Amino acid sequence: MIDLFCFVSPNARKIHMALEELGLPYAVRWVDITRGDQFAPHFLRVNPNGKIPAIVDHDGPGGEPVRLFESAAILLYLAEKTGALLPDDPAARWEAICWTVWQVANQGPGLGQATHFLQYAPDGGHVDPYAQDRFRAEAQRVYRVLDERLTGRDYLAGDAFSIADIACFPWTRLSRHHGVTVTDYPAVVAWSERIAARPSAQAKIDDHRDEATRRFQYSAEQRAVLFPTAPDPDR
Amino acid sequence: MIDLFCFVSPNARKIHMALEELGLPYAVRWVDITRGDQFAPHFLRVNPNGKIPAIVDHDGPGGEPVRLFESAAILLYLAEKTGALLPDDPAARWEAICWTVWQVANQGPGLGQATHFLQYAPDGGHVDPYAQDRFRAEAQRVYRVLDERLTGRDYLAGDAFSIADIACFPWTRLSRHHGVTVTDYPAVVAWSERIAARPSAQAKIDDHRDEATRRFQYSAEQRAVLFPTAPDPDR
Repeated sequence: MIDLFCFVSPNARKIHMALEELGLPYAVRWVDITRGDQFAPHFLRVNPNGKIPAIVDHDGPGGEPVRLFESAAILLYLAEKTGALLPDDPAARWEAICWTVWQVANQGPGLGQATHFLQYAPDGGHVDPYAQDRFRAEAQRVYRVLDERLTGRDYLAGDAFSIADIACFPWTRLSRHHGVTVTDYPAVVAWSERIAARPSAQAKIDDHRDEATRRFQYSAEQRAVLFPTAPDPDR
Repeated sequence: MIDLFCFVSPNARKIHMALEELGLPYAVRWVDITRGDQFAPHFLRVNPNGKIPAIVDHDGPGGEPVRLFESAAILLYLAEKTGALLPDDPAARWEAICWTVWQVANQGPGLGQATHFLQYAPDGGHVDPYAQDRFRAEAQRVYRVLDERLTGRDYLAGDAFSIADIACFPWTRLSRHHGVTVTDYPAVVAWSERIAARPSAQAKIDDHRDEATRRFQYSAEQRAVLFPTAPDPDR
């Protein structure tokens, strides 16, 4: 049994999709990141970085429990554990690993900041044109790189669906927050629809958020947890 | 022989250090990212993401050449190729992989944005207190997480020096740009000094930058390449 620590998020969705694809038994452990559950000592023992997703595999290597954090590391672990979701051909396998890492180092951070400065910050009264223009450019770059890679290919590593596709797919479902016109990237749209048709993409976890949180209408307390700031001590 | 495509950067330094640690033969291929060499077609065939570092291993799996991009993917590849720089114990191995991914998904993006908004943007006339406070907070978080992990441990995965340490070390040498007081993180300082003493950390590549670029005094042309922006089409 695997404990999946999660909230409704594109990063948690990757792991949920992989577990569904692989048919591994798992239990959802809800971590309400809008009220700070991710900083509870028992969760920090699972992920010292205080973020979701994270897992504990109670049947890890040698039958011992193992903790894993960071979605790309968890995807690599699940692929190695099962011998699935990575191509057998070595070059294609490394291509899939490169794109899996690309997602967490480029697509995730870039689109996360775009969402923040284009939506969450203005919702809180901070309209910041310089940062908006910077992260809009990065979002457009990320979609363009993905589109170029997917033009003429079914999946990121070529013919075979892999953890790279699982990593990149969930963020592309949120393009309305990213300052892009997703139809400018037709190969991304076609690939995203292909993946959206898979049963693993249609599986849902129970959503324990209240109505306002589902609409990203965060209270001042939630904003302080989600969007910490550190003023210049010399200001 | 491995071609290492690089510029002077903490991300390229990771791969340079790993190659030195492993004693693998390599040739440095200079990519001047301040003049757009990373967008040349021949380089995009190595890294479709248009960033350094990237490698081509001419003696890849099955003796065939293989390209790799994204520093964490390259580190994983080099560790697998050589059977070194990852612990043998499975739990410690996955711990090292989690921290390697943590670096590219948290430390790198966070400290990169902190450097941008605290140094590069003001150098270009954009002082943006909201973004500065946001990324100063993220930088402090990243140093704190690393410090907590390293307290009572020699290396990130425990007793054994690994690719996780190689991934995280180079950025900590640039703390003056990150809006932190590095001495607030004594375990990071002690670990960083321990790694700095290794021959692999003392190896240097030939630095082809001019004097102004070494001082991060970028021209308008360089800034346009390094810091692209995309204005709101509806503004």
